[in-house]
Amino acid sequence: MEEQEKNTNTATENDDKQEEVVEEAAESVEVLDKDDTDEANDSDADSELQSKLKALQAEKEELYQKLLRVQAEYDNFKKRTVKEREAALKYQSQDLIQELLPALDNFERALQVEKTEATASIIDGISMVYKQIKDALASQGAEEITAVGEEFDPNVHHAVMQIEAEDKPSNIVVEEVQKGYKLKDRVIRPAMVKVNK
Amino acid sequence: MEEQEKNTNTATENDDKQEEVVEEAAESVEVLDKDDTDEANDSDADSELQSKLKALQAEKEELYQKLLRVQAEYDNFKKRTVKEREAALKYQSQDLIQELLPALDNFERALQVEKTEATASIIDGISMVYKQIKDALASQGAEEITAVGEEFDPNVHHAVMQIEAEDKPSNIVVEEVQKGYKLKDRVIRPAMVKVNK
Repeated sequence: MEEQEKNTNTATENDDKQEEVVEEAAESVEVLDKDDTDEANDSDADSELQSKLKALQAEKEELYQKLLRVQAEYDNFKKRTVKEREAALKYQSQDLIQELLPALDNFERALQVEKTEATASIIDGISMVYKQIKDALASQGAEEITAVGEEFDPNVHHAVMQIEAEDKPSNIVVEEVQKGYKLKDRVIRPAMVKVNK
Repeated sequence: MEEQEKNTNTATENDDKQEEVVEEAAESVEVLDKDDTDEANDSDADSELQSKLKALQAEKEELYQKLLRVQAEYDNFKKRTVKEREAALKYQSQDLIQELLPALDNFERALQVEKTEATASIIDGISMVYKQIKDALASQGAEEITAVGEEFDPNVHHAVMQIEAEDKPSNIVVEEVQKGYKLKDRVIRPAMVKVNK
């Protein structure tokens, strides 16, 4: 969001700059028209014409440089637009995924009930639904962050407690308190974990 | 998606056009430089200078028109970009919602089991999760299409059967076979319904 706003501001600045450029160009064309009419019948015109020619050429060159400048800005804007569009598409599901995470947490908790003869059928059905939802998320590039057994990584793990388990290596995640999720290369929510000292 | 591709094509065409414009402009500047050097010392120069001045002015005017043209294309591109960005943002969750719909259908089916003393607890927990998921969808603008009791609307209802219920008005949806969903003003999936004759 912030990035988008920043780009919009830059675009507005560019707008102003280009309007200026076009106005300047319009002025110099007007000035030229006037000079031409006023002095066309001057008999002692040769050197005046020469200097006028030079001025005109300089103005034309200036106009050409302005054209190049606008064109370059246009090209940059297009390149930036393509990049923005790709990023927007890449992370388009993020807002909805973010909203779904608490529901997924509760879903997992609900599935942890004891499976008896009476509840087996509904638990099986609901487990299938849970898997379908996770598959839908995966189809958009959202996946769980692996935690238990991994080396603690502050980029994807959030340590809520340090414990001492002498039978396990140091700095290893020994328990996951809440699942973490990433969307493609972006961490949406780090996994909350307990880490071995 | 198709719209985006079309816009990319248009952008490429514009690219070609503008490169042409800049090349033309570069050529005319070169031609001018040469003329100037060749004929600067001509003693019978007055009328030649006059016509050269006119030509130069015409070239400058042409360059100015090109500048206006590039500027106008740039402005149009920017306006289109803003519109595209808005549309992409508006419907950004559509792909994931589309993937989630079959899971939601199954979720509803699973919740239709008989509630007994043994299953009450898990059904209540899971019903809450279902509501949370629907709320997450709603937060992105996705909602169920109303069907039963509504007048049949081919824009949002898909009739799978006509029935005859004399106690109900004609052309009214009497049963919903599968829920329909819309995302803001866009129908993602029409509701499958039975309609009264």
